[in-house]
Amino acid sequence: MGQLLRVQSFSVSADGYGAGEGQSLERPFGHVDPPTLHGWAFASASWPGRTDGVGRRGLDDYLVRDFDHGIGAEIMGRNKFSPHRGPWNDHEWQGWWGDEPPFHTPVFVMTHHPRPSFTLSDTTFHFVGGDPAAVLEQARAAAGGLDVRLGGGASVIRQFLDADLVDTLHVAVSPVELGAGTRLWTSPDELRDRFEVDVVPSERGGVVHHLFWRK
Amino acid sequence: MGQLLRVQSFSVSADGYGAGEGQSLERPFGHVDPPTLHGWAFASASWPGRTDGVGRRGLDDYLVRDFDHGIGAEIMGRNKFSPHRGPWNDHEWQGWWGDEPPFHTPVFVMTHHPRPSFTLSDTTFHFVGGDPAAVLEQARAAAGGLDVRLGGGASVIRQFLDADLVDTLHVAVSPVELGAGTRLWTSPDELRDRFEVDVVPSERGGVVHHLFWRK
Repeated sequence: MGQLLRVQSFSVSADGYGAGEGQSLERPFGHVDPPTLHGWAFASASWPGRTDGVGRRGLDDYLVRDFDHGIGAEIMGRNKFSPHRGPWNDHEWQGWWGDEPPFHTPVFVMTHHPRPSFTLSDTTFHFVGGDPAAVLEQARAAAGGLDVRLGGGASVIRQFLDADLVDTLHVAVSPVELGAGTRLWTSPDELRDRFEVDVVPSERGGVVHHLFWRK
Repeated sequence: MGQLLRVQSFSVSADGYGAGEGQSLERPFGHVDPPTLHGWAFASASWPGRTDGVGRRGLDDYLVRDFDHGIGAEIMGRNKFSPHRGPWNDHEWQGWWGDEPPFHTPVFVMTHHPRPSFTLSDTTFHFVGGDPAAVLEQARAAAGGLDVRLGGGASVIRQFLDADLVDTLHVAVSPVELGAGTRLWTSPDELRDRFEVDVVPSERGGVVHHLFWRK
Protein backbone atom coordinates (compact mmCIF):
# COMPACT_ATOMS: atom_id res chain seq x y z
CA MET A 1 0.00 0.00 0.00
CA GLY A 2 3.01 2.31 0.12
CA GLN A 3 3.29 4.96 2.81
CA LEU A 4 -0.08 6.38 3.78
CA LEU A 5 -0.74 9.89 5.03
CA ARG A 6 -3.03 9.40 8.04
CA VAL A 7 -4.98 11.79 10.26
CA GLN A 8 -5.31 10.08 13.66
CA SER A 9 -7.75 10.94 16.44
CA PHE A 10 -8.39 14.51 15.35
CA SER A 11 -11.30 16.08 17.24
CA VAL A 12 -13.69 18.75 16.00
CA SER A 13 -16.87 20.43 17.19
CA ALA A 14 -20.29 19.74 15.67
CA ASP A 15 -19.77 22.81 13.48
CA GLY A 16 -16.34 21.59 12.33
CA TYR A 17 -13.85 23.60 14.40
CA GLY A 18 -10.64 21.92 15.60
CA ALA A 19 -9.72 24.82 17.89
CA GLY A 20 -11.33 28.00 19.13
CA GLU A 21 -10.27 31.62 18.69
CA GLY A 22 -7.55 33.39 20.64
CA GLN A 23 -4.79 30.77 20.99
CA SER A 24 -2.28 31.70 23.68
CA LEU A 25 0.36 30.13 25.87
CA GLU A 26 -2.27 29.51 28.52
CA ARG A 27 -4.97 28.38 26.08
CA PRO A 28 -3.51 26.21 23.29
CA PHE A 29 -7.02 25.59 21.92
CA GLY A 30 -8.18 29.20 22.27
CA HIS A 31 -11.63 29.79 23.76
CA VAL A 32 -12.50 26.09 23.81
CA ASP A 33 -11.57 24.00 26.86
CA PRO A 34 -9.59 20.96 25.65
CA PRO A 35 -11.86 18.33 27.32
CA THR A 36 -14.81 19.67 25.32
CA LEU A 37 -13.28 18.23 22.16
CA HIS A 38 -10.76 15.71 23.50
CA GLY A 39 -12.43 14.32 26.63
CA TRP A 40 -13.20 11.02 24.86
CA ALA A 41 -9.46 10.53 24.22
CA PHE A 42 -8.25 11.79 27.62
CA ALA A 43 -10.47 9.12 29.24
CA SER A 44 -8.81 6.30 27.30
CA ALA A 45 -6.31 3.93 28.91
CA SER A 46 -3.90 4.42 25.99
CA TRP A 47 -3.84 8.24 26.04
CA PRO A 48 -0.11 9.09 25.93
CA GLY A 49 -0.40 11.69 28.70
CA ARG A 50 -1.83 9.24 31.25
CA THR A 51 0.17 8.84 34.42
CA ASP A 52 -2.45 7.22 36.66
CA GLY A 53 -2.33 3.80 35.01
CA VAL A 54 -6.10 3.58 34.62
CA GLY A 55 -8.60 4.70 31.99
CA ARG A 56 -11.27 3.24 29.78
CA ARG A 57 -10.70 0.60 27.11
CA GLY A 58 -13.11 -0.43 24.35
CA LEU A 59 -13.85 1.41 21.10
CA ASP A 60 -12.29 4.79 21.89
CA ASP A 61 -9.15 3.14 23.20
CA TYR A 62 -8.56 1.15 20.00
CA LEU A 63 -8.63 4.42 18.06
CA VAL A 64 -6.37 6.27 20.51
CA ARG A 65 -3.93 3.35 20.60
CA ASP A 66 -3.58 3.48 16.82
CA PHE A 67 -2.05 6.98 17.11
CA ASP A 68 1.55 5.77 16.71
CA HIS A 69 1.00 2.36 15.14
CA GLY A 70 2.99 2.08 11.93
CA ILE A 71 3.84 5.80 11.99
CA GLY A 72 7.37 6.95 11.14
CA ALA A 73 6.98 10.75 11.01
CA GLU A 74 4.50 13.54 11.78
CA ILE A 75 3.63 16.74 9.92
CA MET A 76 2.12 19.55 11.99
CA GLY A 77 1.27 23.22 11.57
CA ARG A 78 3.14 26.06 13.19
CA ASN A 79 0.18 26.73 15.50
CA LYS A 80 0.12 23.18 16.80
CA PHE A 81 3.76 23.62 17.76
CA SER A 82 3.63 27.11 19.24
CA PRO A 83 1.34 29.98 20.29
CA HIS A 84 3.78 32.48 18.76
CA ARG A 85 3.36 34.04 15.31
CA GLY A 86 5.84 35.43 12.80
CA PRO A 87 9.64 35.04 12.95
CA TRP A 88 11.13 32.95 15.79
CA ASN A 89 12.36 35.64 18.17
CA ASP A 90 14.00 33.11 20.42
CA HIS A 91 14.58 29.38 20.25
CA GLU A 92 13.67 28.68 23.84
CA TRP A 93 10.17 27.53 22.97
CA GLN A 94 10.38 23.77 22.29
CA GLY A 95 6.70 22.89 21.98
CA TRP A 96 3.95 22.20 24.52
CA TRP A 97 5.08 18.70 25.43
CA GLY A 98 8.00 19.04 27.83
CA ASP A 99 11.14 16.92 27.67
CA GLU A 100 9.38 13.77 26.44
CA PRO A 101 7.16 14.66 23.47
CA PRO A 102 4.67 11.91 22.59
CA PHE A 103 5.76 11.64 18.93
CA HIS A 104 8.95 9.50 19.11
CA THR A 105 9.70 10.19 15.42
CA PRO A 106 10.84 13.09 13.25
CA VAL A 107 8.25 15.89 13.27
CA PHE A 108 8.00 18.39 10.41
CA VAL A 109 6.62 21.76 11.53
CA MET A 110 5.29 23.80 8.60
CA THR A 111 6.38 27.43 8.84
CA HIS A 112 7.49 30.28 6.59
CA HIS A 113 10.18 31.17 9.13
CA PRO A 114 13.41 29.16 9.23
CA ARG A 115 14.68 27.69 12.49
CA PRO A 116 17.31 25.03 13.25
CA SER A 117 16.17 21.47 13.98
CA PHE A 118 16.39 20.24 17.57
CA THR A 119 15.88 16.96 19.40
CA LEU A 120 14.02 16.22 22.63
CA SER A 121 14.31 12.61 23.80
CA ASP A 122 13.50 10.52 20.67
CA THR A 123 11.60 13.27 18.84
CA THR A 124 13.39 15.59 16.38
CA PHE A 125 11.60 18.74 15.22
CA HIS A 126 12.36 20.09 11.74
CA PHE A 127 11.04 23.46 10.50
CA VAL A 128 10.12 23.38 6.83
CA GLY A 129 8.58 25.63 4.24
CA GLY A 130 7.12 24.68 0.87
CA ASP A 131 3.80 23.34 -0.30
CA PRO A 132 2.09 20.28 1.18
CA ALA A 133 3.42 17.89 -1.49
CA ALA A 134 7.02 18.96 -0.84
CA VAL A 135 6.63 18.66 2.93
CA LEU A 136 5.05 15.23 2.56
CA GLU A 137 7.97 14.12 0.41
CA GLN A 138 10.43 15.07 3.15
CA ALA A 139 8.35 13.38 5.85
CA ARG A 140 8.04 10.16 3.83
CA ALA A 141 11.79 10.07 3.28
CA ALA A 142 12.32 10.38 7.05
CA ALA A 143 9.67 7.81 8.00
CA GLY A 144 11.73 4.68 7.34
CA GLY A 145 9.12 3.13 5.08
CA LEU A 146 6.31 3.68 7.61
CA ASP A 147 3.22 5.87 7.31
CA VAL A 148 3.15 9.61 8.02
CA ARG A 149 0.72 11.12 10.53
CA LEU A 150 -0.83 14.47 9.67
CA GLY A 151 -1.15 15.96 13.14
CA GLY A 152 -3.15 19.10 12.44
CA GLY A 153 -4.35 21.68 13.24
CA ALA A 154 -7.46 21.98 11.15
CA SER A 155 -6.03 24.46 8.66
CA VAL A 156 -3.07 22.20 7.87
CA ILE A 157 -5.34 19.18 7.39
CA ARG A 158 -7.50 21.35 5.13
CA GLN A 159 -4.46 22.23 2.99
CA PHE A 160 -3.53 18.57 2.54
CA LEU A 161 -7.15 17.62 1.77
CA ASP A 162 -7.34 20.37 -0.84
CA ALA A 163 -4.13 18.99 -2.39
CA ASP A 164 -5.70 15.49 -2.31
CA LEU A 165 -2.78 14.03 -0.35
CA VAL A 166 -4.66 12.43 2.58
CA ASP A 167 -5.24 8.65 2.53
CA THR A 168 -7.13 8.03 5.79
CA LEU A 169 -8.74 10.34 8.38
CA HIS A 170 -10.16 9.58 11.78
CA VAL A 171 -12.11 12.60 13.02
CA ALA A 172 -14.08 12.51 16.28
CA VAL A 173 -17.05 14.88 16.16
CA SER A 174 -18.20 16.21 19.52
CA PRO A 175 -21.79 17.45 19.94
CA VAL A 176 -20.81 20.97 21.10
CA GLU A 177 -20.85 23.99 18.74
CA LEU A 178 -17.99 26.50 18.90
CA GLY A 179 -19.17 29.14 16.46
CA ALA A 180 -15.66 30.35 15.61
CA GLY A 181 -12.04 29.23 15.41
CA THR A 182 -9.98 27.09 13.04
CA ARG A 183 -12.30 25.08 10.86
CA LEU A 184 -11.85 21.66 9.23
CA TRP A 185 -15.21 21.53 7.45
CA THR A 186 -18.79 22.69 7.48
CA SER A 187 -19.95 19.07 7.47
CA PRO A 188 -18.21 15.67 7.24
CA ASP A 189 -20.39 15.01 4.20
CA GLU A 190 -18.11 17.34 2.20
CA LEU A 191 -15.58 14.50 1.93
CA ARG A 192 -17.95 11.84 0.63
CA ASP A 193 -17.20 12.50 -3.00
CA ARG A 194 -13.59 11.38 -2.55
CA PHE A 195 -13.71 9.16 0.54
CA GLU A 196 -15.53 6.14 1.88
CA VAL A 197 -16.56 6.59 5.50
CA ASP A 198 -17.64 4.48 8.47
CA VAL A 199 -19.65 6.54 10.97
CA VAL A 200 -19.34 4.98 14.44
CA PRO A 201 -21.01 6.55 17.49
CA SER A 202 -19.23 6.19 20.83
CA GLU A 203 -21.83 6.34 23.54
CA ARG A 204 -19.28 6.38 26.36
CA GLY A 205 -17.05 8.95 24.67
CA GLY A 206 -19.93 11.21 23.72
CA VAL A 207 -18.57 11.65 20.19
CA VAL A 208 -19.19 10.21 16.73
CA HIS A 209 -16.12 8.75 15.07
CA HIS A 210 -15.80 9.35 11.34
CA LEU A 211 -13.34 6.92 9.73
CA PHE A 212 -12.56 8.01 6.17
CA TRP A 213 -10.45 6.35 3.55
CA ARG A 214 -9.74 7.28 -0.02
CA LYS A 215 -12.04 5.75 -2.67
CA MET B 1 -0.89 -1.20 33.21
CA GLY B 2 1.57 -4.08 33.21
CA GLN B 3 1.39 -6.73 30.52
CA LEU B 4 -2.17 -7.36 29.41
CA LEU B 5 -3.54 -10.66 28.11
CA ARG B 6 -5.53 -9.69 25.01
CA VAL B 7 -7.86 -11.60 22.69
CA GLN B 8 -7.65 -9.88 19.29
CA SER B 9 -10.10 -10.19 16.39
CA PHE B 10 -11.55 -13.54 17.45
CA SER B 11 -14.65 -14.44 15.42
CA VAL B 12 -17.62 -16.53 16.56
CA SER B 13 -21.03 -17.47 15.23
CA ALA B 14 -24.29 -16.03 16.60
CA ASP B 15 -24.55 -19.13 18.80
CA GLY B 16 -21.00 -18.69 20.09
CA TYR B 17 -18.90 -21.19 18.13
CA GLY B 18 -15.36 -20.29 17.08
CA ALA B 19 -15.01 -23.33 14.81
CA GLY B 20 -17.22 -26.10 13.48
CA GLU B 21 -16.99 -29.85 13.97
CA GLY B 22 -14.62 -32.19 12.16
CA GLN B 23 -11.38 -30.22 11.91
CA SER B 24 -9.00 -31.73 9.33
CA LEU B 25 -5.99 -30.77 7.26
CA GLU B 26 -8.32 -29.63 4.50
CA ARG B 27 -10.80 -27.90 6.82
CA PRO B 28 -9.03 -26.09 9.68
CA PHE B 29 -12.37 -24.70 10.91
CA GLY B 30 -14.29 -27.98 10.51
CA HIS B 31 -17.71 -27.80 8.86
CA VAL B 32 -17.74 -23.99 8.78
CA ASP B 33 -16.25 -22.18 5.78
CA PRO B 34 -13.70 -19.63 7.09
CA PRO B 35 -15.26 -16.60 5.32
CA THR B 36 -18.52 -17.24 7.19
CA LEU B 37 -16.85 -16.14 10.43
CA HIS B 38 -13.78 -14.24 9.20
CA GLY B 39 -14.96 -12.54 6.02
CA TRP B 40 -15.09 -9.14 7.76
CA ALA B 41 -11.35 -9.48 8.56
CA PHE B 42 -10.31 -10.99 5.21
CA ALA B 43 -11.81 -7.90 3.51
CA SER B 44 -9.65 -5.51 5.54
CA ALA B 45 -6.62 -3.75 4.05
CA SER B 46 -4.51 -4.75 7.07
CA TRP B 47 -5.30 -8.49 7.01
CA PRO B 48 -1.86 -10.14 7.29
CA GLY B 49 -2.59 -12.61 4.50
CA ARG B 50 -3.34 -9.94 1.90
CA THR B 51 -1.18 -10.01 -1.20
CA ASP B 52 -3.28 -7.87 -3.54
CA GLY B 53 -2.47 -4.54 -1.89
CA VAL B 54 -6.11 -3.51 -1.66
CA GLY B 55 -8.90 -4.01 0.88
CA ARG B 56 -11.27 -2.00 2.99
CA ARG B 57 -10.25 0.49 5.66
CA GLY B 58 -12.48 2.02 8.33
CA LEU B 59 -13.75 0.42 11.54
CA ASP B 60 -12.94 -3.23 10.80
CA ASP B 61 -9.46 -2.32 9.63
CA TYR B 62 -8.58 -0.50 12.87
CA LEU B 63 -9.45 -3.66 14.78
CA VAL B 64 -7.56 -5.97 12.42
CA ARG B 65 -4.54 -3.67 12.45
CA ASP B 66 -4.39 -3.84 16.24
CA PHE B 67 -3.64 -7.60 16.00
CA ASP B 68 0.11 -7.21 16.57
CA HIS B 69 0.26 -3.74 18.13
CA GLY B 70 2.13 -3.89 21.43
CA ILE B 71 2.13 -7.70 21.37
CA GLY B 72 5.29 -9.60 22.38
CA ALA B 73 4.07 -13.23 22.46
CA GLU B 74 1.08 -15.41 21.57
CA ILE B 75 -0.56 -18.32 23.37
CA MET B 76 -2.55 -20.74 21.23
CA GLY B 77 -4.22 -24.12 21.62
CA ARG B 78 -2.94 -27.34 20.06
CA ASN B 79 -5.87 -27.34 17.63
CA LYS B 80 -5.09 -23.88 16.32
CA PHE B 81 -1.61 -25.12 15.52
CA SER B 82 -2.44 -28.51 14.04
CA PRO B 83 -5.25 -30.80 12.89
CA HIS B 84 -3.48 -33.76 14.53
CA ARG B 85 -4.37 -35.16 17.94
CA GLY B 86 -2.37 -37.07 20.56
CA PRO B 87 1.43 -37.50 20.55
CA TRP B 88 3.45 -35.82 17.79
CA ASN B 89 4.18 -38.73 15.45
CA ASP B 90 6.43 -36.63 13.29
CA HIS B 91 7.78 -33.12 13.50
CA GLU B 92 7.21 -32.28 9.86
CA TRP B 93 4.01 -30.35 10.60
CA GLN B 94 5.00 -26.75 11.31
CA GLY B 95 1.59 -25.09 11.46
CA TRP B 96 -0.81 -23.83 8.78
CA TRP B 97 1.08 -20.65 7.96
CA GLY B 98 3.97 -21.62 5.67
CA ASP B 99 7.49 -20.26 5.98
CA GLU B 100 6.41 -16.79 7.14
CA PRO B 101 3.93 -17.15 9.99
CA PRO B 102 2.05 -13.91 10.79
CA PHE B 103 3.03 -13.87 14.48
CA HIS B 104 6.62 -12.49 14.46
CA THR B 105 7.04 -13.30 18.18
CA PRO B 106 7.43 -16.37 20.38
CA VAL B 107 4.28 -18.54 20.23
CA PHE B 108 3.37 -20.90 23.07
CA VAL B 109 1.34 -23.90 21.88
CA MET B 110 -0.55 -25.57 24.74
CA THR B 111 -0.26 -29.35 24.53
CA HIS B 112 0.10 -32.34 26.82
CA HIS B 113 2.63 -33.82 24.40
CA PRO B 114 6.24 -32.58 24.44
CA ARG B 115 7.93 -31.43 21.25
CA PRO B 116 11.10 -29.43 20.60
CA SER B 117 10.80 -25.71 19.85
CA PHE B 118 11.45 -24.57 16.28
CA THR B 119 11.74 -21.29 14.44
CA LEU B 120 10.24 -20.16 11.13
CA SER B 121 11.37 -16.73 10.00
CA ASP B 122 10.90 -14.48 13.09
CA THR B 123 8.36 -16.74 14.83
CA THR B 124 9.50 -19.39 17.35
CA PHE B 125 7.00 -22.06 18.43
CA HIS B 126 7.31 -23.52 21.92
CA PHE B 127 5.22 -26.49 23.10
CA VAL B 128 4.18 -26.21 26.71
CA GLY B 129 2.06 -28.07 29.25
CA GLY B 130 0.73 -26.79 32.54
CA ASP B 131 -2.29 -24.75 33.59
CA PRO B 132 -3.21 -21.39 32.02
CA ALA B 133 -1.51 -19.33 34.76
CA ALA B 134 1.79 -21.18 34.27
CA VAL B 135 1.64 -20.82 30.48
CA LEU B 136 0.83 -17.12 30.80
CA GLU B 137 3.82 -16.66 33.08
CA GLN B 138 6.13 -18.15 30.44
CA ALA B 139 4.59 -16.06 27.66
CA ARG B 140 4.91 -12.84 29.67
CA ALA B 141 8.57 -13.57 30.39
CA ALA B 142 9.17 -14.02 26.65
CA ALA B 143 7.19 -10.92 25.60
CA GLY B 144 9.87 -8.33 26.37
CA GLY B 145 7.56 -6.24 28.52
CA LEU B 146 4.81 -6.16 25.87
CA ASP B 147 1.31 -7.63 26.03
CA VAL B 148 0.45 -11.25 25.29
CA ARG B 149 -2.14 -12.20 22.68
CA LEU B 150 -4.42 -15.14 23.44
CA GLY B 151 -4.91 -16.53 19.97
CA GLY B 152 -7.59 -19.18 20.56
CA GLY B 153 -9.28 -21.45 19.72
CA ALA B 154 -12.47 -21.01 21.66
CA SER B 155 -11.73 -23.73 24.21
CA VAL B 156 -8.37 -22.18 25.13
CA ILE B 157 -9.94 -18.72 25.53
CA ARG B 158 -12.63 -20.36 27.67
CA GLN B 159 -9.95 -21.87 29.96
CA PHE B 160 -8.26 -18.50 30.44
CA LEU B 161 -11.60 -16.77 31.07
CA ASP B 162 -12.50 -19.40 33.66
CA ALA B 163 -9.14 -18.75 35.36
CA ASP B 164 -9.91 -14.99 35.23
CA LEU B 165 -6.67 -14.22 33.38
CA VAL B 166 -8.01 -12.26 30.38
CA ASP B 167 -7.75 -8.45 30.43
CA THR B 168 -9.32 -7.45 27.09
CA LEU B 169 -11.28 -9.36 24.43
CA HIS B 170 -12.34 -8.32 20.96
CA VAL B 171 -14.86 -10.84 19.63
CA ALA B 172 -16.62 -10.34 16.28
CA VAL B 173 -20.04 -12.02 16.28
CA SER B 174 -21.30 -13.07 12.87
CA PRO B 175 -25.06 -13.50 12.27
CA VAL B 176 -24.82 -17.16 11.14
CA GLU B 177 -25.63 -20.08 13.49
CA LEU B 178 -23.37 -23.15 13.45
CA GLY B 179 -25.23 -25.46 15.84
CA ALA B 180 -22.11 -27.42 16.83
CA GLY B 181 -18.34 -27.10 17.19
CA THR B 182 -15.97 -25.45 19.65
CA ARG B 183 -17.88 -22.96 21.74
CA LEU B 184 -16.76 -19.73 23.39
CA TRP B 185 -20.07 -18.85 25.05
CA THR B 186 -23.82 -19.20 24.83
CA SER B 187 -24.14 -15.41 24.80
CA PRO B 188 -21.72 -12.47 25.13
CA ASP B 189 -23.83 -11.33 28.09
CA GLU B 190 -22.21 -14.09 30.17
CA LEU B 191 -19.13 -11.89 30.56
CA ARG B 192 -20.92 -8.76 31.76
CA ASP B 193 -20.49 -9.55 35.43
CA ARG B 194 -16.71 -9.23 35.14
CA PHE B 195 -16.20 -7.07 32.04
CA GLU B 196 -17.26 -3.73 30.64
CA VAL B 197 -18.21 -3.97 26.97
CA ASP B 198 -18.66 -1.70 23.98
CA VAL B 199 -20.97 -3.27 21.38
CA VAL B 200 -20.17 -1.84 17.94
CA PRO B 201 -22.01 -3.02 14.82
CA SER B 202 -20.06 -3.09 11.56
CA GLU B 203 -22.51 -2.67 8.73
CA ARG B 204 -19.90 -3.28 6.02
CA GLY B 205 -18.36 -6.26 7.79
CA GLY B 206 -21.73 -7.83 8.60
CA VAL B 207 -20.65 -8.55 12.19
CA VAL B 208 -21.08 -6.98 15.62
CA HIS B 209 -17.83 -6.23 17.42
CA HIS B 210 -17.81 -6.86 21.17
CA LEU B 211 -14.95 -5.03 22.88
CA PHE B 212 -14.59 -6.25 26.47
CA TRP B 213 -12.28 -5.05 29.20
CA ARG B 214 -11.95 -6.12 32.79
CA LYS B 215 -13.99 -4.11 35.34
